[in-house]
Amino acid sequence: MSNREKHDRMANAIRALAMDAVQAANSGHPGMPMGMADVATVLFGKVLKFDPTDPHWADRDRFILSAGHGSMLLYSLLYLTGYEGMTIDDIKNFRQLGSRTPGHPEYGHTVGVETTTGPLGQGIATSVGFALAERMLAAQFGSDLVDHYTYVIAGDGCLMEGLSEEAIEIAGRQKLNKLIVMWDDNHITIDGPTSLSVATDQLARFEASGWEATRIDGHDPDAILAAIERAKASDKPSLIACRTTIGFGAPNKQGTNGVHGTPLGAAEIAATRQALGWEYDPFVIPSDVLDAWRLAGLRSRQAHKAWNERLSAADMEKRGEFERRLRGELPSKFSEAVAGVIAKARADGGAVATRKSSEITLEAITAALPEMVGGSADLTHSNNTKTKATSVYVEPPKYDGRYVNWGIREHGMAAAMNGITLHGGFIPYGGTFLVFSDYCRPAIRMAALMGIRVVYVFTHDSIGVGEDGPTHQPVEQIAALRAIPNLLVFRPCDTVETAEAWKLALEHKTGPSVLALTRQNLPLLRTDAGTERCLTARGAYELVAASDEAKVSLFASGSEVSMAVAAREQLESQGIPTRVVSVPSFELFLNQPEESRRQVVGQAPVKIAIEAAIRQGWDAIVGSDAAFVGMHGFGASGPAPEVFAHFGITVEGVVATALSRLKG
Amino acid sequence: MSNREKHDRMANAIRALAMDAVQAANSGHPGMPMGMADVATVLFGKVLKFDPTDPHWADRDRFILSAGHGSMLLYSLLYLTGYEGMTIDDIKNFRQLGSRTPGHPEYGHTVGVETTTGPLGQGIATSVGFALAERMLAAQFGSDLVDHYTYVIAGDGCLMEGLSEEAIEIAGRQKLNKLIVMWDDNHITIDGPTSLSVATDQLARFEASGWEATRIDGHDPDAILAAIERAKASDKPSLIACRTTIGFGAPNKQGTNGVHGTPLGAAEIAATRQALGWEYDPFVIPSDVLDAWRLAGLRSRQAHKAWNERLSAADMEKRGEFERRLRGELPSKFSEAVAGVIAKARADGGAVATRKSSEITLEAITAALPEMVGGSADLTHSNNTKTKATSVYVEPPKYDGRYVNWGIREHGMAAAMNGITLHGGFIPYGGTFLVFSDYCRPAIRMAALMGIRVVYVFTHDSIGVGEDGPTHQPVEQIAALRAIPNLLVFRPCDTVETAEAWKLALEHKTGPSVLALTRQNLPLLRTDAGTERCLTARGAYELVAASDEAKVSLFASGSEVSMAVAAREQLESQGIPTRVVSVPSFELFLNQPEESRRQVVGQAPVKIAIEAAIRQGWDAIVGSDAAFVGMHGFGASGPAPEVFAHFGITVEGVVATALSRLKG
Repeated sequence: MSNREKHDRMANAIRALAMDAVQAANSGHPGMPMGMADVATVLFGKVLKFDPTDPHWADRDRFILSAGHGSMLLYSLLYLTGYEGMTIDDIKNFRQLGSRTPGHPEYGHTVGVETTTGPLGQGIATSVGFALAERMLAAQFGSDLVDHYTYVIAGDGCLMEGLSEEAIEIAGRQKLNKLIVMWDDNHITIDGPTSLSVATDQLARFEASGWEATRIDGHDPDAILAAIERAKASDKPSLIACRTTIGFGAPNKQGTNGVHGTPLGAAEIAATRQALGWEYDPFVIPSDVLDAWRLAGLRSRQAHKAWNERLSAADMEKRGEFERRLRGELPSKFSEAVAGVIAKARADGGAVATRKSSEITLEAITAALPEMVGGSADLTHSNNTKTKATSVYVEPPKYDGRYVNWGIREHGMAAAMNGITLHGGFIPYGGTFLVFSDYCRPAIRMAALMGIRVVYVFTHDSIGVGEDGPTHQPVEQIAALRAIPNLLVFRPCDTVETAEAWKLALEHKTGPSVLALTRQNLPLLRTDAGTERCLTARGAYELVAASDEAKVSLFASGSEVSMAVAAREQLESQGIPTRVVSVPSFELFLNQPEESRRQVVGQAPVKIAIEAAIRQGWDAIVGSDAAFVGMHGFGASGPAPEVFAHFGITVEGVVATALSRLKG
Repeated sequence: MSNREKHDRMANAIRALAMDAVQAANSGHPGMPMGMADVATVLFGKVLKFDPTDPHWADRDRFILSAGHGSMLLYSLLYLTGYEGMTIDDIKNFRQLGSRTPGHPEYGHTVGVETTTGPLGQGIATSVGFALAERMLAAQFGSDLVDHYTYVIAGDGCLMEGLSEEAIEIAGRQKLNKLIVMWDDNHITIDGPTSLSVATDQLARFEASGWEATRIDGHDPDAILAAIERAKASDKPSLIACRTTIGFGAPNKQGTNGVHGTPLGAAEIAATRQALGWEYDPFVIPSDVLDAWRLAGLRSRQAHKAWNERLSAADMEKRGEFERRLRGELPSKFSEAVAGVIAKARADGGAVATRKSSEITLEAITAALPEMVGGSADLTHSNNTKTKATSVYVEPPKYDGRYVNWGIREHGMAAAMNGITLHGGFIPYGGTFLVFSDYCRPAIRMAALMGIRVVYVFTHDSIGVGEDGPTHQPVEQIAALRAIPNLLVFRPCDTVETAEAWKLALEHKTGPSVLALTRQNLPLLRTDAGTERCLTARGAYELVAASDEAKVSLFASGSEVSMAVAAREQLESQGIPTRVVSVPSFELFLNQPEESRRQVVGQAPVKIAIEAAIRQGWDAIVGSDAAFVGMHGFGASGPAPEVFAHFGITVEGVVATALSRLKG
């Protein structure tokens, strides 16, 4: 059998599995796996450095299927190359409840899936984080331990999403030459030919941002291999436009949008079998083909062994640190660093903005944690994200810094941070204004869905922004973030709670965290010196008790906690026993045992929630019969104190609400 | 005085007002207005077709300040050219509460502001909608009535946001040659030189998408004028890179990020006055300069008069229709069209997906409303957004269609829809999957903030998506959309409610609306034939009464209403009087009088809310003590009925919850 015949049979195995699994599920996307089977066969068969027996090998090449709807391409490859945890039965159960083969690849669910994909553009943007992490980790631990490529298969949809431009520009600025994107240039989207909506010269577009770009016949194995080899040798990130026929092999449907997201149907599948000369039953892979694929899976065994030896031979301390970093464990001095911040804050007293509290905390913990990588979407000195320890920029050619200038690209930043975490070895954090969390929301959702540790530093967290006005004043963003499952949202009230929030965010390995922080100064409220309790971990707690059986309970987060404390003083001075509950995190509070929650909420006849944001979400904490002092619509431009007064979010407003409720 | 001297004095008036207003406010962005003063002076002084005495003149050129933080540039121009509603006192009150000069330009708040800007990228993307609307309206009413340009000033931040790429690609595909973007190419962002984060050749980038691109000295009036004239004559959209010095004129700070977003300070302002030869007190414009500017404001009077004459001379019917379209009034046959859909649905009965219900409604109303322009982000046949009346594509050279192929660009679509509405003459609607509302959320927020009529058709609105899995199953999106102030969110339960939702969305001129629609079939529930009441307008209403005094009230939206009806039958058959409340819109319900709301909520001892989404928001409707059958985290991949069963969102689940509550 010629090399070409062997290649064709290996590629046709992918095509057959894809069309048969989609047919069996009666749902899914056969077109892309069939179209990109040749590219994938060359990549996995001849190029990719990977070891199916050790999917977590730190120095493996990463493969990211940005066009996640083509999941059967990836599942086929995982099965064919011999990953444990991907059997032919898993392929047969494609898209069934509880299977290892869900509709789109899910990180943490299926072995060998480097990142969850499906929402278009996320894969290519996440891959920038992978490739950047590789360069950074190599800079810190040397190329004997870290030296791998990041390969991406992307579709037209990925390239049309604006997110991809942010990713392309970041990769170009960072000269991520070990990032290689193979674009499934099949001229088809769901609605029809790409010409309906695209007139962009993609090669020129990528080149404009410092990429190498080339176009090849995506069904010519030699051309594919040559292009990948050229890309590997380039000093720029590379785009390989692979001109393909979507649904390649389906004689009556290929090249049309009819094969994109619909089963081929029994007749066309039979015709495809004939056209491809594939005479085997569904889900049957002949032994010569399976052997060839399994051999491909063994191709990097030697490289893996040599890498293991290099790791074993490494300096003990370096090795220990490398392994700790990859396990994502925090060093022992972490807790001390946080404790030091809290002790100093209590000693110093004084009012600071929580964005400054965050900076103070970051100074200590970035010094203690070399794995932390900071950044901001061009608001460094507003987000207070740069510290002494992270003051050197991550940039070519050395990549030895710890601070990324993401540019005004919140979405690209958030997606790349996902990639940095997924690669391993780093804990990324990045800043923007809270209101612009909307710009990166899809990538935040991906982090939450994957359950990975990323920290968002969202400052300017309310109408306290002041003069910038309603475009820049978050009103609904906190509620909208609290709505995302598996995302911890912290809105701390002072330096102590901010330090505790950072501690919890970094200890939370199974999901992302948001810190919502003020621009305006706030007094220190947590003066409970001597105790070591991390009260923020409870989500909500009584900050100030009432002088007697409470008639009023005030619940607040962030900048409104000090307002509640001041209102309590006025109410107490009028003989009304009043307590204050600080609520830095809804999620953590709602996870407390019911009895604890009941105690914190208390029995006061008047309950008032106070937050310079909309009410949505508060009812679950305080009950829908509680009063609310907060926002009921968009904000307004003006000096912050005047804006707060305009919307009645003041000490006087809280007192008046309490008195009115007590009367009522 | 030479022309150049005159130009310089006019431009320096902008610089002086900008630096003085920012200084007085002690907050704001002087750098951009000072840097782009020359470009703006040429544009407003020599090119722009506008009439300050009639800011709403339909055929004015549109000017969009995409770099909205440079609002003092726009406010200065509005004052200098003589807009009523912008006085020197307004300039002095820059950024003060209640002033006409908020931190960022706000549409509907300040005369002459075409669109709210500030969140970067929104302006340039919205401008694509303006330019497209111009072409479409010209195609329908002729170039004697519609023939104007759309000018944009954009900054580095606008170009870095991925949204801008979507906008650029749409404009290139649509060959919007009357769109002219002037980029403030000042090499500075907030964090420092653009080289920190950008290595993109912007001219090449725009050219790759079919734009004309050129670079000029942004301080050379002749070069600016020549470039604009060339751009006007081009058959492509144009980018003019205006190489400028940020903070031009401030001798010690210009060209640095120090002038971007901070007052210059008294000393630097004095030095700037000296450097520019501007010897006047703050807010004083010498009469020669003010006269020159006011003359510029009169420049298009003749053109305006001629246009008025052409409109007067037009066919009465055409003129009436043109004016109706621009007023945004619905034609009288609109209500009939909706009523026809409802009558036919009741006659037909049968189960249909609400996305199909929406299509049925759209068939009728797009036929009745020529102003409706449809589209989808490449999910036309999933969103069911294309109708017979809108089947012709909007595309060059004729632009006579009514359906836009937006491509896989949700954010660009939503922002362009804002521009289409703002331009006037059209009601845009556009589709994608509900889960991808996250991708266009910032533009939805802009529509809500501006209070403009845009309709989002978001299908596949729950775990009912099934096999595509958690990446494609919205769980928190409905809550997150309900969180946006001034956005109507509809989740209709059948064809009648869907038709009513469309009616309300189109009648709602002061804000955008979302229709959240199912992929799966739903039975007709609103069989109340003969009544003409639009019950959806109440937000929630009793759909099925209990047989006796209700022991259980079931509240549900969308696909879960039929589930509630089935559960009611089971409970009633067990002797438990149960009522069902349909809740198609939280916002409309919460706006009802308290007494009406109390009646709808009722007094049943057991209340259960049912929605295949997270609970957040429901407490405000049903109370925090009610039970909830819905989602508590992300979804799962599998056939939809199995997924519903897996999460306990079933008739049996509702019945069991009711029984358990009745016992407790």
